[in-house]
Amino acid sequence: MNHFLEISQLPRQQIESLLHRALEFKQQERYPSYSQHAVVNLFYEDSTRTRVSFEMAANHLSMPVINLDLQNSSENKGEIIEDTVKTLAAMGIHYFVIRHKQEGLQQQLANTLGNAIHIVNAGDGTHAHPSQAILDMMTIMEQNPQLDQLKITVLGNIKHSRVANSFQSICNKLGVGELVLVAPPIWQPQSLDYGRVTDDLVDGLTDADVVICLRVQRERLLETEHLDLESYRRDFALTQKSLAYAKPSVMVMHPGPMNRGVEIDSDVADGKHSFILEQVSNGVYARMAVFESLILN
Amino acid sequence: MNHFLEISQLPRQQIESLLHRALEFKQQERYPSYSQHAVVNLFYEDSTRTRVSFEMAANHLSMPVINLDLQNSSENKGEIIEDTVKTLAAMGIHYFVIRHKQEGLQQQLANTLGNAIHIVNAGDGTHAHPSQAILDMMTIMEQNPQLDQLKITVLGNIKHSRVANSFQSICNKLGVGELVLVAPPIWQPQSLDYGRVTDDLVDGLTDADVVICLRVQRERLLETEHLDLESYRRDFALTQKSLAYAKPSVMVMHPGPMNRGVEIDSDVADGKHSFILEQVSNGVYARMAVFESLILN
Amino acid sequence: MNHFLEISQLPRQQIESLLHRALEFKQQERYPSYSQHAVVNLFYEDSTRTRVSFEMAANHLSMPVINLDLQNSSENKGEIIEDTVKTLAAMGIHYFVIRHKQEGLQQQLANTLGNAIHIVNAGDGTHAHPSQAILDMMTIMEQNPQLDQLKITVLGNIKHSRVANSFQSICNKLGVGELVLVAPPIWQPQSLDYGRVTDDLVDGLTDADVVICLRVQRERLLETEHLDLESYRRDFALTQKSLAYAKPSVMVMHPGPMNRGVEIDSDVADGKHSFILEQVSNGVYARMAVFESLILN
Repeated sequence: MNHFLEISQLPRQQIESLLHRALEFKQQERYPSYSQHAVVNLFYEDSTRTRVSFEMAANHLSMPVINLDLQNSSENKGEIIEDTVKTLAAMGIHYFVIRHKQEGLQQQLANTLGNAIHIVNAGDGTHAHPSQAILDMMTIMEQNPQLDQLKITVLGNIKHSRVANSFQSICNKLGVGELVLVAPPIWQPQSLDYGRVTDDLVDGLTDADVVICLRVQRERLLETEHLDLESYRRDFALTQKSLAYAKPSVMVMHPGPMNRGVEIDSDVADGKHSFILEQVSNGVYARMAVFESLILN
Repeated sequence: MNHFLEISQLPRQQIESLLHRALEFKQQERYPSYSQHAVVNLFYEDSTRTRVSFEMAANHLSMPVINLDLQNSSENKGEIIEDTVKTLAAMGIHYFVIRHKQEGLQQQLANTLGNAIHIVNAGDGTHAHPSQAILDMMTIMEQNPQLDQLKITVLGNIKHSRVANSFQSICNKLGVGELVLVAPPIWQPQSLDYGRVTDDLVDGLTDADVVICLRVQRERLLETEHLDLESYRRDFALTQKSLAYAKPSVMVMHPGPMNRGVEIDSDVADGKHSFILEQVSNGVYARMAVFESLILN
Repeated sequence: MNHFLEISQLPRQQIESLLHRALEFKQQERYPSYSQHAVVNLFYEDSTRTRVSFEMAANHLSMPVINLDLQNSSENKGEIIEDTVKTLAAMGIHYFVIRHKQEGLQQQLANTLGNAIHIVNAGDGTHAHPSQAILDMMTIMEQNPQLDQLKITVLGNIKHSRVANSFQSICNKLGVGELVLVAPPIWQPQSLDYGRVTDDLVDGLTDADVVICLRVQRERLLETEHLDLESYRRDFALTQKSLAYAKPSVMVMHPGPMNRGVEIDSDVADGKHSFILEQVSNGVYARMAVFESLILN
């Protein structure tokens, strides 16, 4: 693995190997040291949680980390991102964790730059967020290793969600039994990589083993004439009431940050079914597995 | 000690133990390594000096440090601070150095969150700044160990000063002989934890062993109809002339950053009585003692 | 060497020693550890590349690094920079890498502060950028060690370029054979430290061994009534066509970040004559040599 760009590009065996290694890291007290391999976090979009998760993963592996505040970067002087990456690579940094609002930017960089540069996609627009898919699946498999027997439901703004996209890909690769994507019509995507789409929350939640609730961005609601917060809450919010349709053992997940009282109620987010903080914990191990796989490639 | 929130909450013995340990660290060449214990600096208010002091303290103890630029945090996406703390804790960070303009915020978090999370109050509004009190008292005791025989004067905007509040508490706990708080009437607090208040600078400074001069925020002066810079200077500034009322061995202290020529003159700030840079040096050792006490609790 | 402020202040032997040590570092796999010596990057002007280069240099030497976002610094509260430096020094940080728009600021600090504080000038206004001169000359000498036989041309806004200033000084100190500075009349300096100035690009490029192309700041072009982008391109841009006047072995250099299609064409910047990324790589070693020289002084 030279880059980590999108789940759909990886062979099933590679994905399984990442999941296996992440679970292994979780059991360990001490980790290998890759102190010769510096990482830069190039975040062109804000993100506390993802940036810190990658930083903690790098810390555990003794990798030096450079954080760049892109407000202050030479980008602002007109230098193109490719030159930024090449410049940092010339300084001896070969691992680039990049988040950017432009879809496919990381792919484009990977196509242009040489093999010595390793790019990790930490989110590109509404396209992909592959490390999130690894940590989500890791969290599910810890509880339910038999993926072909599961019904998993993803709930929210499917159309604009890179989390939903990467998750579809990993379900496809690993053969999840049933994947249901629940969204209001205006937020349903035109095509799917895997699963089926519905606007019927009861259909989606009934007998679900796992529910992944996506963040509803208030800005998106404001863009939309046909949807307001109240009607979204009524038809799509994850509440104790709606969750009752799912299996008694249902896992509740959310990529965070949550809008409590919007897409999810606090008693669900903090309730006994919630694996939301477990996802966060697993994210560090998942990203350690990604880094190590790039280093040992 | 599970949190470090406010001096008034700590038993006298705990405070003495922190002071003792800080002075010990100051004598040492090498420090213990707590590399398994990551710290996050969550600064919702700007502060170079306090943030860097905690960062240096953590560095000396080999604790990994994550700095969060809260302008870019998920706070901005509506996630509440409690979720931010829980999320970071789930990533394996258990020491939270928090500065926030809201009084009692750190206390409120400590009440809600579990024992695995350790909160250090690095300043909450006008309420408390307990690590400043430790470093202030450490600096005083290095020169004057007999606290019950001292006259200490704090000078400035007592009403809005978290530094003055925490300092009153530590004087109370440790039994300082005499504490005088000098402020113009509009900046006098309604109640005191310890000491007496006056608007007479000569009264405050006469035979003082220690003078702590507080920063005068120009914004506060502008808010006030009854006080201008010139009259503040005339009645309350620490100058060579006003300092002459104090003992010949008087210590001059200031929490920084100073407004030279406002609350303190440069020849006093840089003069032979000044322990202002000694306070800064001691701050690192004081914060090391705080971290260690939380780790070994 | 107690500070690293300006090439013209250093004896020739010191400069040669820095170049020699930088080239030695480049050959090494492991570096000495100076983990007791903390560095702070005080950047009052934005710069990704220079800041990260100093950070990587410090990392290689195991020096702890504190990065300060000066937007959030106590500067904003009126504290003068000298107090900031003294405060950080009191915390145990003795190496200050400072970039500031005010010319001579670093010199002024060095004059005031004691010997325990070591200041590295990372660029002061249009005045000096001495570490850039070391890395530039290091890159040239790797290819052409006989400096007295070289024709080197610097091209661009000579008048406002700290890179050009420091480069003149190093050429002067080391006795470069011929230095030609090419600029439109309005961007020619009133006096030179070394070399000759012309507005004739052909004169400058003919038989040149090295061409250093400076960044053209669009803002500077907009300030000027007598120069527009098109006429600058026609008379001064480094293109395949203009480069043909130089020697077949010509080295193309640029301090970065580049404005591709403005002062330099992409086929030149990325072509076989380009040593632009080599400059970036060498910058880390040059800065390691600077740090070590200050530590061992």
